[in-house]
Amino acid sequence: MGMASEIRQDKTSGRWVIIAPTRGKRPSDFRRHKEGRESQPIHDPRCPFCAGNEQTLPGIIMESSLPGQTGWQTRVVPNKYPALTPEADASRYRRGIYLAMPGYGRHEVIIESPLHNQDLATMSPAAVATVIETYHRRYVEVMKERNNLMAIVFRNHGIRAGTSLLHPHSQLMVTGIVPQWVRWRENEAQDYFDEWGRCVYCDILAFEARDRQRVILENTSFLAFVPFAAEVPFEVWLVPKRHQADFGRISDEEKKDLTSALRDILARLCRKLDNPDYNYMINTSTRHQTEQPQLHWFLQLQPRLTTQAGFEIRTGMHINPSVPEEDAAYLNEASPHAPAAAEGLDTETFS
Amino acid sequence: MGMASEIRQDKTSGRWVIIAPTRGKRPSDFRRHKEGRESQPIHDPRCPFCAGNEQTLPGIIMESSLPGQTGWQTRVVPNKYPALTPEADASRYRRGIYLAMPGYGRHEVIIESPLHNQDLATMSPAAVATVIETYHRRYVEVMKERNNLMAIVFRNHGIRAGTSLLHPHSQLMVTGIVPQWVRWRENEAQDYFDEWGRCVYCDILAFEARDRQRVILENTSFLAFVPFAAEVPFEVWLVPKRHQADFGRISDEEKKDLTSALRDILARLCRKLDNPDYNYMINTSTRHQTEQPQLHWFLQLQPRLTTQAGFEIRTGMHINPSVPEEDAAYLNEASPHAPAAAEGLDTETFS
Repeated sequence: MGMASEIRQDKTSGRWVIIAPTRGKRPSDFRRHKEGRESQPIHDPRCPFCAGNEQTLPGIIMESSLPGQTGWQTRVVPNKYPALTPEADASRYRRGIYLAMPGYGRHEVIIESPLHNQDLATMSPAAVATVIETYHRRYVEVMKERNNLMAIVFRNHGIRAGTSLLHPHSQLMVTGIVPQWVRWRENEAQDYFDEWGRCVYCDILAFEARDRQRVILENTSFLAFVPFAAEVPFEVWLVPKRHQADFGRISDEEKKDLTSALRDILARLCRKLDNPDYNYMINTSTRHQTEQPQLHWFLQLQPRLTTQAGFEIRTGMHINPSVPEEDAAYLNEASPHAPAAAEGLDTETFS
Repeated sequence: MGMASEIRQDKTSGRWVIIAPTRGKRPSDFRRHKEGRESQPIHDPRCPFCAGNEQTLPGIIMESSLPGQTGWQTRVVPNKYPALTPEADASRYRRGIYLAMPGYGRHEVIIESPLHNQDLATMSPAAVATVIETYHRRYVEVMKERNNLMAIVFRNHGIRAGTSLLHPHSQLMVTGIVPQWVRWRENEAQDYFDEWGRCVYCDILAFEARDRQRVILENTSFLAFVPFAAEVPFEVWLVPKRHQADFGRISDEEKKDLTSALRDILARLCRKLDNPDYNYMINTSTRHQTEQPQLHWFLQLQPRLTTQAGFEIRTGMHINPSVPEEDAAYLNEASPHAPAAAEGLDTETFS
């Protein structure tokens, strides 16, 4: 396409948008296409993430092995079609009446296994621990660069969650600006702290641990629960009990407990909801906020079982057709299988 | 489900969420299901929106006919599974440490034709004019109630846009609160006005009309363009040239011009992008803001050609893989058909 990425501001809302033609799509690419989910081979000769296909990668940034093993388990590589690149300049400029900046940042892929058909939900504890360790190591590394104001680790699982590559992977994106929602969240926590003198996340942890209506699991370092105002069915937050704004300061014990909690949650979703598509994101403080008493990092998981429509796009106000307390109860049922016959959506539901 | 809708606040972000179990889904309903789009009959005996099936409707609020014709062309009906209802109380209360309120509001369906297989993009000018007229009449009516702080007319076209009923229809939702994003947008316009003494939308109109890089069409009352920081490919804004915060004050001439502009835009999208799924929303001022010099209503249309993933969910920062100026040029091409062979998505695009 010739044009590099550009980050542009919507003057009416203040929101930034990444215009990323480098991702290699043309208008005709947006016409309808079919997608499916079939069973996958252990190795796909055309998959750039499979072991042995390294020559198709744009580079390898970092590799990690399982303890006591040779060969890589996780691999961090540059995204071949990055929305953002570290070569770009991070300065703003004017375009007519608008504000914009080059597509500065980083966009990396964290390959979670050399095998094509693995799934994080069923990988071994040691393998998932290596994935978490890789998140942490790479996160700390990119945040050493002063231009990087925010780094976010996230995972898109399945077509409805926005991924097109099936080989198990997460992503890391780094920006030179603080996106508006992220700042709004930080401001909201600041307001709460200024009113109550406490971290809102710590207060929620204490309340949920006592109330227990929405708790799914608890271990030494983490509480996992469906949030009171869950935006989507079966949303789950995995919140560290220790107050800490910055994911970069996660302790070894917390990594171990995050591994087991995440495996547990993913296994329940997979079993109870038939391997749903989902996104998870590690929400952590932005640069200059890492020492703040009002911020608290956590992992936010949202299954993609519903579709946002016009009302949500305009208002940002989600319509969640399920009840958080019932979702928690459903994920807590002892039965390893889902109840009787799934009935499918009521076709008379008006849109 | 027994439980009525409840609106809950996410304490960490301040965002409100509608918990709407009245929409009749159960956990098992969220398991995978297949959906397709086949050609539809002119009348479907099981469709509640088809003429002759009135007995399955929960009521009829309003009907309109084409000029000089008998029989209805549009019909406003209560949503059978409403996310919000006017019977609920609009007061806030505490639930533990959280804030919540009953699901007060309105949720209505605007049936756009008695015929099952019509499409707004190809309906007659008179039929589309009646749809716009119905939006306006009903909007003015619901905003007479003082508890209604916001009303939004929107249209979900296709499965990816969140609709499950194929009979052509729009929706109207009314809330007793101002959702956070809506307020943020209003505040942003306020800041601009306080700095420059002008409406940001009027300034954008003037700039786009001069710059012409992103303009798709112009008539006496409207300018249609791809916004500079389009969040998604082929996003289009239809902005009235006359400064006016409140959609309720649309003039007869503006309705005529909106009809022709909307038909034109929908026809281009349909032809050039193979009838894409889309949402459109009429963004208008909230109650108490209708006289403001800094607000300006407009129709925002977003095709659903891409999928929001973890990065967007966390940051609200969209990644748009196409360039607004190129999208506008593509929609302006004289050719009635899309270019050569559509190639489908590059399967090597990393997620």
